[in-house]
Amino acid sequence: MRVTFLGTGGAGGVPRFGCTCLACQRAKGNHRHVRRPCSALIEDGNHKILLDAGLMDLHDRFEPGELSAIVLTHYHPDHVQGLLHLRWGKGESIPVYGPPDPGGFTDLFKHPGILDIFDLSAFGALELGDFILTPLPLNHSKLTFGYAIAHRNGARFAYLTDTLGLPQVTDDFLSRWRPSHIAVDCSHPPADVSGKTPQNHNDVTAALAMIERSGAEQGWLTHLGHETDCWLMANASALPKNVTPAADGLSFDITTSHSPT
Amino acid sequence: MRVTFLGTGGAGGVPRFGCTCLACQRAKGNHRHVRRPCSALIEDGNHKILLDAGLMDLHDRFEPGELSAIVLTHYHPDHVQGLLHLRWGKGESIPVYGPPDPGGFTDLFKHPGILDIFDLSAFGALELGDFILTPLPLNHSKLTFGYAIAHRNGARFAYLTDTLGLPQVTDDFLSRWRPSHIAVDCSHPPADVSGKTPQNHNDVTAALAMIERSGAEQGWLTHLGHETDCWLMANASALPKNVTPAADGLSFDITTSHSPT
Ligand SMILES: [Mn+2]
Ligand SMILES: [Mn+2]
Ligand SMILES: [Mn+2]
Ligand SMILES: [Mn+2]
Ligand SMILES: [Zn+2]
Ligand SMILES: [Zn+2]
Repeated sequence: MRVTFLGTGGAGGVPRFGCTCLACQRAKGNHRHVRRPCSALIEDGNHKILLDAGLMDLHDRFEPGELSAIVLTHYHPDHVQGLLHLRWGKGESIPVYGPPDPGGFTDLFKHPGILDIFDLSAFGALELGDFILTPLPLNHSKLTFGYAIAHRNGARFAYLTDTLGLPQVTDDFLSRWRPSHIAVDCSHPPADVSGKTPQNHNDVTAALAMIERSGAEQGWLTHLGHETDCWLMANASALPKNVTPAADGLSFDITTSHSPT
Repeated sequence: MRVTFLGTGGAGGVPRFGCTCLACQRAKGNHRHVRRPCSALIEDGNHKILLDAGLMDLHDRFEPGELSAIVLTHYHPDHVQGLLHLRWGKGESIPVYGPPDPGGFTDLFKHPGILDIFDLSAFGALELGDFILTPLPLNHSKLTFGYAIAHRNGARFAYLTDTLGLPQVTDDFLSRWRPSHIAVDCSHPPADVSGKTPQNHNDVTAALAMIERSGAEQGWLTHLGHETDCWLMANASALPKNVTPAADGLSFDITTSHSPT
């Protein structure tokens, strides 16, 4: 299983329009530090699955027929806005799976165009080729699923954003499931530094706790805000060795599953 | 007054994702034929006003403070979707004016971020620097205003999309007002060729009738679909001499008003 972070930013991204903080200045000067809407591509040579659709150039990035499916964590604009344009394509339809959110997003359900939109249910596994995705309830301001993504070859990856900590049922599931890699919401710098109590999204402290508790070999921080980037610039060595801030375009392969103990 | 068409496409744009028609093939091969979401920039050296916000890279195209205002025709996604990201900027707020549509667009009214959103009313003039914009009711599937845009130097430009024909009150206004340039919705090829009765948007026939009735010296076709482009490719000489299909990036200056007769 190959995972590519296509976007690793929170709503507003990095650089943030009009912001002059160090992280935003750095991103303006070097595109490697730009963070676009949070999303990832999962592939195995046979299938490509897009996790979240907030990138607004999906119609330019992908060829017709290239994506086997789009899987949504939730219907906040920064995770679905790219579908507003993509839907008006022609030809082969694209299956889109997401949480059962009757409000959905603007007029997407009324005018789905080439999108075939399906509701998932918590813990109801979705099979796509050799992938099995299990929707996991998260703690967010809108009905949101993380995904436990297994491949028949044994690779296991958990993708958990947007969330602040985890509901007990999801925590229980992950303790048994044991991902080898995990990507988690890390929107905010540590609350004890910022003085802001996290709401709806992890701060660095909550993100690191989630990674450690999962027992994953490797943790990835995603959905990073510009203030998190500023904190990381000043505290580069504060992260555990097995935790890495994700970056737009960064890929990694998961070849084997974490051996259950 | 300088007018620049930033986008001249209908919903879905040209090329349309997955389409292989002649117009879409041409646009894939030559970026000059690409049509992005319908929008225009009006400027006079002191102020820049953006008409519609469907372009999804507004945060990259404009510097903070560059736009004096954004003026919306209506809250369909292809005319406002770029605000979903832009709103999360920092610093100086951007005034946004649009029709009084309580539903608006997704969570934009609830979380406007740096946008200050104001309702306009039909025929209630909006003054921005030396510009005076008069909202004109249009015929569309959602509450929609066209704009009669006057400059204190006498230049007059009417921007009328999305619409199928005009309500009597707007037609009456334009007959008296006499724009020198007019840009009109031209989403579809002529109905007698396509066999499809136009709905909510002009076909070529309705667009040409609207331009002729306005008495404008110069008419521009905008909000063009790929099927309209195909028709234009085959019927290049079918348009009157004073009517030109707009193109993304095309600019023109209006230096004097049309002399009223
Ligand atoms: Mn988000
Ligand atoms: Mn969210
Ligand atoms: Mn439109
Ligand atoms: Mn419309
Ligand atoms: Zn910043
Ligand atoms: Zn086409």
